[in-house]
Amino acid sequence: MKHTLSVLVENESGVLSRIAGLFARRSFNIDSLAVGQAENPEISRITMVIDGDYRTIEQLTKQLYKLINVIKVYDVTNIPVVERELLLLKVYLQDDSEMEKIVEIANIFRARIVDIAELSVILELTGDPGKIAALQSMLKKFNVTEIARTGKICLTRTSQINSETLKISNSN
Amino acid sequence: MKHTLSVLVENESGVLSRIAGLFARRSFNIDSLAVGQAENPEISRITMVIDGDYRTIEQLTKQLYKLINVIKVYDVTNIPVVERELLLLKVYLQDDSEMEKIVEIANIFRARIVDIAELSVILELTGDPGKIAALQSMLKKFNVTEIARTGKICLTRTSQINSETLKISNSN
Repeated sequence: MKHTLSVLVENESGVLSRIAGLFARRSFNIDSLAVGQAENPEISRITMVIDGDYRTIEQLTKQLYKLINVIKVYDVTNIPVVERELLLLKVYLQDDSEMEKIVEIANIFRARIVDIAELSVILELTGDPGKIAALQSMLKKFNVTEIARTGKICLTRTSQINSETLKISNSN
Repeated sequence: MKHTLSVLVENESGVLSRIAGLFARRSFNIDSLAVGQAENPEISRITMVIDGDYRTIEQLTKQLYKLINVIKVYDVTNIPVVERELLLLKVYLQDDSEMEKIVEIANIFRARIVDIAELSVILELTGDPGKIAALQSMLKKFNVTEIARTGKICLTRTSQINSETLKISNSN
């Protein structure tokens, strides 16, 4: 099962190396990783998605706490969160009719066109990882030459309500 | 000077650890880091911002190429790119009048309100790092309790034109 950890660390040289080293030693592959400044400029928030059962993730969390500069580890897998990822995607076009189709798809997904040349465009899309995957799937038949994705970030919802949680509780 | 490297790596366990280890050994602090799937699912694109002069970055690039699973290193510091970052930010409000002010600021920046509870909101903003910093600065006087940022990603512009490059060439 995929787990999402939100880890607060002191912004010191070497902290990422220690965390990545821990994952490498245990042969964990990190599905997604985003590192950015947190609410305090001296602290970074690392959001990572890892595949593993509860017990493994629990052990991993304990190991993370043993590393210096690690302040707090939150497992946000089962709590209501806003989760978002950012995608930039470059498409090369064969002709003008393809451009029309791309613009139409961009509008459906509310993706923005952020660069345009004679036969190429760059799209920008922000959304949950499912929306990002859906756009990529719709564009498979076109000549997508470059993709950059950030890895997802998340914050817990104060409202305690999110659509995913509602879906799960309705199905029980 | 800040340099932006876009690095393509094979999606194997341990590659991030080797890269982070290289930076730690040379006491480099990575300002920003984003890791996500590239155009091929077996390849990840790592975008990193590092402070250093040209010579140091050139040496670092050579060292990166020596690591296994590293496919390609692009220094995109001085070429026209679309660069974007994603921010999630939680604000606690003292009263309803603060809510109005937050909504107004969100509209100016075209930030989206993605969660709302009685006295708290989560804003989502996508933009270049300057825009992200400007929003954070505007919200300093409010009670911002949590921030998650992705680190920036970028793609080279096929149009070869960007506003930053125009600014620099105009000032010469």
